[in-house]
Amino acid sequence: MHMSFSGYNFIGGQRSALGDTLVYSVDAHTGERLPGAFHQASLDEVDNAVAAASAAFPAYRKLSAERRAQFLEAIADELDGLGEDFIAVTCQETALPSARIAGERARTSGQMRLFAQVLRRGDFYGARIDRALPARTPLPRPDLRQYRIGVGPVAVFGASNFPLAFSTAGGDTAAALAAGCPVVFKAHSGHMATAERVAEALLRAAERTGMPAGVFNMIFGGGVGEALVKHPGIQAVGFTGSLKGGRALCDMAAARAQPIPVFAEMSSINPVLVLPHALASRSAQLAKDLSASVVQGCGQFCTNPGLVLGIRSPAFSAFIEQLRGHMAEQAPQTMLNAGTLASYGKGIQALLAHPGVEKLSGLAQSGKQAQPQLFKADVSLLLEQDELLQEEVFGPCTVVVEVNDQAELLRAVNALHGQLTATLLADSDDLGAFGQLFDVLEVKVGRVLLNGYPTGVEVCDAMVHGGPYPATSDARGTSVGTLAIDRFLRPVCYQNVPDALLPEALRDANPLGIQRLVDGKPSNAALN
Amino acid sequence: MHMSFSGYNFIGGQRSALGDTLVYSVDAHTGERLPGAFHQASLDEVDNAVAAASAAFPAYRKLSAERRAQFLEAIADELDGLGEDFIAVTCQETALPSARIAGERARTSGQMRLFAQVLRRGDFYGARIDRALPARTPLPRPDLRQYRIGVGPVAVFGASNFPLAFSTAGGDTAAALAAGCPVVFKAHSGHMATAERVAEALLRAAERTGMPAGVFNMIFGGGVGEALVKHPGIQAVGFTGSLKGGRALCDMAAARAQPIPVFAEMSSINPVLVLPHALASRSAQLAKDLSASVVQGCGQFCTNPGLVLGIRSPAFSAFIEQLRGHMAEQAPQTMLNAGTLASYGKGIQALLAHPGVEKLSGLAQSGKQAQPQLFKADVSLLLEQDELLQEEVFGPCTVVVEVNDQAELLRAVNALHGQLTATLLADSDDLGAFGQLFDVLEVKVGRVLLNGYPTGVEVCDAMVHGGPYPATSDARGTSVGTLAIDRFLRPVCYQNVPDALLPEALRDANPLGIQRLVDGKPSNAALN
Repeated sequence: MHMSFSGYNFIGGQRSALGDTLVYSVDAHTGERLPGAFHQASLDEVDNAVAAASAAFPAYRKLSAERRAQFLEAIADELDGLGEDFIAVTCQETALPSARIAGERARTSGQMRLFAQVLRRGDFYGARIDRALPARTPLPRPDLRQYRIGVGPVAVFGASNFPLAFSTAGGDTAAALAAGCPVVFKAHSGHMATAERVAEALLRAAERTGMPAGVFNMIFGGGVGEALVKHPGIQAVGFTGSLKGGRALCDMAAARAQPIPVFAEMSSINPVLVLPHALASRSAQLAKDLSASVVQGCGQFCTNPGLVLGIRSPAFSAFIEQLRGHMAEQAPQTMLNAGTLASYGKGIQALLAHPGVEKLSGLAQSGKQAQPQLFKADVSLLLEQDELLQEEVFGPCTVVVEVNDQAELLRAVNALHGQLTATLLADSDDLGAFGQLFDVLEVKVGRVLLNGYPTGVEVCDAMVHGGPYPATSDARGTSVGTLAIDRFLRPVCYQNVPDALLPEALRDANPLGIQRLVDGKPSNAALN
Repeated sequence: MHMSFSGYNFIGGQRSALGDTLVYSVDAHTGERLPGAFHQASLDEVDNAVAAASAAFPAYRKLSAERRAQFLEAIADELDGLGEDFIAVTCQETALPSARIAGERARTSGQMRLFAQVLRRGDFYGARIDRALPARTPLPRPDLRQYRIGVGPVAVFGASNFPLAFSTAGGDTAAALAAGCPVVFKAHSGHMATAERVAEALLRAAERTGMPAGVFNMIFGGGVGEALVKHPGIQAVGFTGSLKGGRALCDMAAARAQPIPVFAEMSSINPVLVLPHALASRSAQLAKDLSASVVQGCGQFCTNPGLVLGIRSPAFSAFIEQLRGHMAEQAPQTMLNAGTLASYGKGIQALLAHPGVEKLSGLAQSGKQAQPQLFKADVSLLLEQDELLQEEVFGPCTVVVEVNDQAELLRAVNALHGQLTATLLADSDDLGAFGQLFDVLEVKVGRVLLNGYPTGVEVCDAMVHGGPYPATSDARGTSVGTLAIDRFLRPVCYQNVPDALLPEALRDANPLGIQRLVDGKPSNAALN
């Protein structure tokens, strides 16, 4: 690694290293410490970072949506401008292949540009105008106008598995900045050098577009997350990671003097249902594609298919054999870090130890790489709510479950906890008989897929990367796609306030040219 | 009271009285027990009520929005059809005047009809369609479509102060039913006979419009709320009441195996800022109108103005004198119940006992009625975050605070906790000098009023009856107005699902004729 890293925290547009504790990034392949040390933020620095974000909030939130859009676009440009050496650093820290990192960078900058479009479109304002009805009886109606503003400084926790798209300048940061909320970002220990480069890019963009100092802050270190979430200045939290970690943040946030919302994307086993006609027509292809989805990115996707359900039949048995063949051919892969590998090992061990679970393929898990694994479990584990099958095993592993018939399939699906996704592999002849599945799946998940694989999560307006607990802590949010901005907005109403004092989004002339709900009807027009 | 009451719980369309504990309604004027006993729900009955709501959910949520609209309109008609004897019962239970109850009934049925309009308008679906881009490189985009569905059974807690509009068939119930969520309603002990009549009306409407049994359930009794909120079948909670009560529910909900959102509207002192030019031009009128707002409904409004701020001047001193005169003329009033009166007494006592607070008018609080009270407090109580001034005293009482200058006014406002409302009494000449106040107030409150009084809360699209903690538990919601439905909805995405299997809101032909966001642009059109 030829680049140099200061390892200082980013606070209010300055670099800061008040604490004595140093933390280090490691080479994900070798586990060896990389040169350069990162300064764990002291409690004073956590305070300072939140203070900087709080100080930036009044100015930042009042900037026009156009100005914020320019900021996001400048971030995108800066990200795209990072050189090959940047990608090399990320590959070294995460063991992810460079093509994946290049693609993830494009996704990350594209995400910033998409939020810029949202800001210009203006629907995020949720503008609503009910004009005065002075002659109404028995009481006149005052003039009432509603729009949405940012909730305040947001704490964002970087995820390990997407060092760009769900990290420093990732989806939560983009959504918060778009909403007008300054960010205090807690860098993930798995890619601190990457985080430093991205934070520098972000600050260059902030400077170039004249953003207030403190619009973005980043702190390093273990244990600082708790102080961050408990800080009275923080008004919402974004997190992607484990159920245990996410739930701990939720509990802290709920116990504050002022409770705040936590949007944690946590744990999902993403059931895939293989239906009979699809099996009959294209079993081999399904087995091949499904195994590819299971091992994609070493299985380190939130939407990794961790459970495969089918109805007992010779065709399903043959499919399982095909799946076993493909899974057995998959090479071991280096995981993101030692902690992830250790968790994977524990998850595999728990499956091996369970009498209701049978191993179908996979070399014994040992050494420094993750061995792809295929298991088969008895449906009773689902029906009797055994926690084992409900728990995400983060890595290249999936569990097949055979059910006896369609009724048992419905019961098994009903027994599932909340999920990010559910996938039907089905032909049109299946859909008549199994149409009811959509109704059952809909209440369990954030996204229902037909004949696709859940591991691709498109960044667009219609995406939902969310779902009932424990997939996320709040099923009403999404952490991918433009609806993600809603998590960090709240409505405010103005009553009888003169036009000149109203925010532009609510003025009679509609200077922003946005669509508004006026007296109960959508309208792009100016008011008389 | 000539009507008869069974006092049975309402569960799954049946009446149920499994428990042995009886609770009684009392005459709010005399404190005497009214004839008829109400059966506190047993734990089994809480279970049964949630089970009935859960059983109704799949069918109810799949009904068309039109069908749900018809149900809400039928409820409205049934409410309007309740006779004079019904109003007499409510007056007896709450000591509220009959004109207020008649008006509140109109508000309540109007609210149901407004949500019916929302259902027909269809914007609550939040429909978004990103069509497939099969030729996109490097990867094609699948077809992605998002809409919103109800979160599941909702627990609603009735408020004491609006026995109709914030109770059995009140705003939270209306919003949940509109969203497709069955309701388990916990009747308030202060108006159980009223609640029984309203629940009967609601069930008549459900039967008349063919709703599933269990779409609405009601349980009586103390202590059953905890079991309700902790029940795994409940997916969200609506509450209007005290900070203590609301926070307790939030804590319970956060500690569940599956945490759920609680929308609690709790405590607000609703500051009113009286600015110099307004004082100069119409001090007498302002004092008169403000005192009327303070004592309206015996001060038992969530938006009661509990804090009056002005800049020290001879004019403000004169205004305080005028306010004192009006407050001193206000008659004592009977409160909703003995508990509310006791709380009011305690709140007044705490103000009297504080060395920084001076009493300006009001007879000693004693007996069975609330004596209107006016206090004056030193600004240091605000600036130094003394909790006393931040706490709502629910009743006909307000506190005046003088500040030294505009800068101190801003500091005082900044020191406030979250509020439902803030009001400026100001002339146009004030607004130039004090325009900055809007920015400061906006981050503190849900609604900013100019030259009105916060005690009127219009039911419309643009209303926000919400605000930062402790005004509510979640600033992103409102409990009045059509946006209230959002609290009980969550997004779901369909990927590559054929048209015939999609919900109507997302089908190509747009059979509902609703506006959708199609490929990033709002459109009412059918898709090709």
